[in-house]
Amino acid sequence: MNANLFADLPPVPEAAERFTDLLRRPGVRIERIVSTGQCSPPDFWYDQAEGEWVLVLRGAARLRFADEEAARWLGPGDWVEIAPHRRHRVEWTAPDEATVWLAVFFAA
Amino acid sequence: MNANLFADLPPVPEAAERFTDLLRRPGVRIERIVSTGQCSPPDFWYDQAEGEWVLVLRGAARLRFADEEAARWLGPGDWVEIAPHRRHRVEWTAPDEATVWLAVFFAA
Repeated sequence: MNANLFADLPPVPEAAERFTDLLRRPGVRIERIVSTGQCSPPDFWYDQAEGEWVLVLRGAARLRFADEEAARWLGPGDWVEIAPHRRHRVEWTAPDEATVWLAVFFAA
Repeated sequence: MNANLFADLPPVPEAAERFTDLLRRPGVRIERIVSTGQCSPPDFWYDQAEGEWVLVLRGAARLRFADEEAARWLGPGDWVEIAPHRRHRVEWTAPDEATVWLAVFFAA
């Protein structure tokens, strides 16, 4: 029996996003994030010291960068690199299904 | 238009596996691998200095570790960590569809 990225998905909707570390080694961390309609609070921006590479595998999301006019729509298979300190926020995730993200964080 | 992990999949069958770097930064590399029935040559074992975390997203494969009796069957969502120098080989990949792997390599 292998570990599976789509195992133990929460019911929809759920109160909060779920974050699960899949791997944690010096300089790299791989995390599963499951969103069920959550988004970033108004005027909140992530500003991370680490680099991030993020992939949507199920569901859908809108990811906004502070230096871009419009949010990017992300669906299954879409991936984005987020440079350290590039400000960004999640404007929307699908309210009626689980959105499964795979995020790789790495030392900048 | 975002980069998509499932874009530009090769026709099945194709002569060789396709390897595409999606991200390359100091200490971490993210690679897409597309197999269309290929497997490791007889008696060949991978023996890597880097750590690897590998996920199958489409298709199916059998991954064998030298220190395990039986191969592990991997289908969509299944992931495995491969420690540095843990000898392993791909015994089989689905012959009739593209098997899409996401591999994260990191400095040990």
